[in-house]
Amino acid sequence: MENLNELKGKLTRDGVDGFLITNEINIHYLTNFTGSESILLITPDNNYLFTDFRYVEQAQQDIPWINIIERKVSLIRTICGKLKQLHIKKLYIESLHLTVNQYYEIKDTVKGIHVLPVQGIVEKYRKRKTREEIKKIQQAIDIAEKAYNNIRKKIRAGFSEKNLADVLEFEIRNQGGERSSFEIICAAGSHASKPHAHTTDRQIQDNDSVLTDWGARFQFYNSDLTRVTFTDKISQKLREIYQIVLDAQCFAIDKVKPGRIAKDIDSIARSYIEKKGFGKCFGHGLGHGIGLEVHEGPVINKRSKEILEEGMVFTVEPGIYIPEWGGVRIEDIVLVTADSCNILSHLPKKITDVYR
Amino acid sequence: MENLNELKGKLTRDGVDGFLITNEINIHYLTNFTGSESILLITPDNNYLFTDFRYVEQAQQDIPWINIIERKVSLIRTICGKLKQLHIKKLYIESLHLTVNQYYEIKDTVKGIHVLPVQGIVEKYRKRKTREEIKKIQQAIDIAEKAYNNIRKKIRAGFSEKNLADVLEFEIRNQGGERSSFEIICAAGSHASKPHAHTTDRQIQDNDSVLTDWGARFQFYNSDLTRVTFTDKISQKLREIYQIVLDAQCFAIDKVKPGRIAKDIDSIARSYIEKKGFGKCFGHGLGHGIGLEVHEGPVINKRSKEILEEGMVFTVEPGIYIPEWGGVRIEDIVLVTADSCNILSHLPKKITDVYR
Repeated sequence: MENLNELKGKLTRDGVDGFLITNEINIHYLTNFTGSESILLITPDNNYLFTDFRYVEQAQQDIPWINIIERKVSLIRTICGKLKQLHIKKLYIESLHLTVNQYYEIKDTVKGIHVLPVQGIVEKYRKRKTREEIKKIQQAIDIAEKAYNNIRKKIRAGFSEKNLADVLEFEIRNQGGERSSFEIICAAGSHASKPHAHTTDRQIQDNDSVLTDWGARFQFYNSDLTRVTFTDKISQKLREIYQIVLDAQCFAIDKVKPGRIAKDIDSIARSYIEKKGFGKCFGHGLGHGIGLEVHEGPVINKRSKEILEEGMVFTVEPGIYIPEWGGVRIEDIVLVTADSCNILSHLPKKITDVYR
Repeated sequence: MENLNELKGKLTRDGVDGFLITNEINIHYLTNFTGSESILLITPDNNYLFTDFRYVEQAQQDIPWINIIERKVSLIRTICGKLKQLHIKKLYIESLHLTVNQYYEIKDTVKGIHVLPVQGIVEKYRKRKTREEIKKIQQAIDIAEKAYNNIRKKIRAGFSEKNLADVLEFEIRNQGGERSSFEIICAAGSHASKPHAHTTDRQIQDNDSVLTDWGARFQFYNSDLTRVTFTDKISQKLREIYQIVLDAQCFAIDKVKPGRIAKDIDSIARSYIEKKGFGKCFGHGLGHGIGLEVHEGPVINKRSKEILEEGMVFTVEPGIYIPEWGGVRIEDIVLVTADSCNILSHLPKKITDVYR
């Protein structure tokens, strides 16, 4: 509500008559509406939610303070009718979330309208989490951690990657999660060389390391963690690489505080991995913001000029991937505090602690 | 592959130099690539997949016959570079799946390019399923049905909606499904009045009817079914409404065959429900195509002029919803055959068979 009012102020200041919110996550963030395939129109003095029959009753209960408009024709045509009726002349649209088709339908149907593409406006609010949001993220993390702890002992030869993922999914729900935040990655042995490996029916072998990347959703907020576990028969190479990734992660986390530039945090982990000779094996960014979406702002990679602020929550997840050999990634979630950061996730990760 | 070649023929005939496929489902359909956040460029004599570090190894294995281009800057900027290099002058884009932002980035960066919005081209191929696709959908249905049968006995007072959904999710995976096709809806008693109710922690009461809407994903193909189950203490009203919905569904299915117009099929169920006095309580369309997406073409509603063709697969799911009282929906999946249709789902639905 607070952000919605701030948005209305912005519209007035910018001399704009309306703002069409087509990103469903942004709609939920601004209003708490939980349906899908709906669009929100904000004007300086009113709010309209365009939805269909399936969600009308729910919307009337969830958000009685918003005008609910049930579409009888297509959603965008219904909206065009309302734009005409309200004499909207200048309209902000979310350029990252409006399709070319919707864009032209508005421009072609509502004569004389100026459609002004903007981006990242609601997303900017979302980057800094409120106390209530942090509590939900913490819950999402706690659930994910408990679930992993409960299945860790099942990670052994004979089990398939998919068996593991399925059991973990069930445990996440059992611990109070709505569901997992994304399709769980369980990658055994050389399979872990793909940072986003698909979980397969491949059986875990005796000496395989197993990489698990999972998260829990709790009241629409997400977590995202990665751990590797292995037997005591691991190779010297795996042991070394694990330690490099862990050190890189810890060094980066140590430097997180308000005012730092995201790419400088990325660079701490990346340059350490490069120094150790594995620079080419760490091809993705160091992390990403997390909240209502698993991937949201701030971007934490080698090009990101975003400045860290108190209240930001993001993952720190360096990795080393060697085709046909395997991979190691360690991922935790941090909250930027007034003068440094809190690590919100607590699963053991010292090499002596992650044997299964 | 066949469709990809057909597309190339179309580009040549239309005098177009390239087609940018931004709908990930369409990319999977055309190429079998299974990663995300990637874009496909088809030219009359080549194919390029733009992706990031996470999917490069996977793409090289999945689709070695496509040029894999790893982005170093943003995906769309990488694509713009290639469009310039290839001297693309006329480019088809998927107007339902390209954002306004991507659209302007291409137009502004690649001077002199004509960006031509088209829609539904790949989706049109997808409406008629091949024999192989039908097999996968049948598997997705069989898995969903076995899973439901295994949990049906657990639908009883004391269990919460969420418990049920969680156990059903696990059973779907246990039966060989990758996961459920969408968030399972379990709605007890009056809660079923919302066609897309959220599953909650609400406990099932003794005389509640329970509506379950679920599906299984198998090798990327989906199923989508709905059943209602109840105790023997149901009210006369519930019994009557159940029978009306079931009759409406059967009458509509009876008329499915090639050449019919989708809205006429919708109308059979709708006018029957109207005749029985519940017209206002059936606010959604009769059904939707299903395949790689849970909702895809053909559209089966009261406005749809699509003509049914052999090989189309869609749901038939009339419902009656009464606010604060409850709702009934029955959903099956049919395949249009040469002269009528096959019902691919087989769970019992006679009123005497659905007591729990």
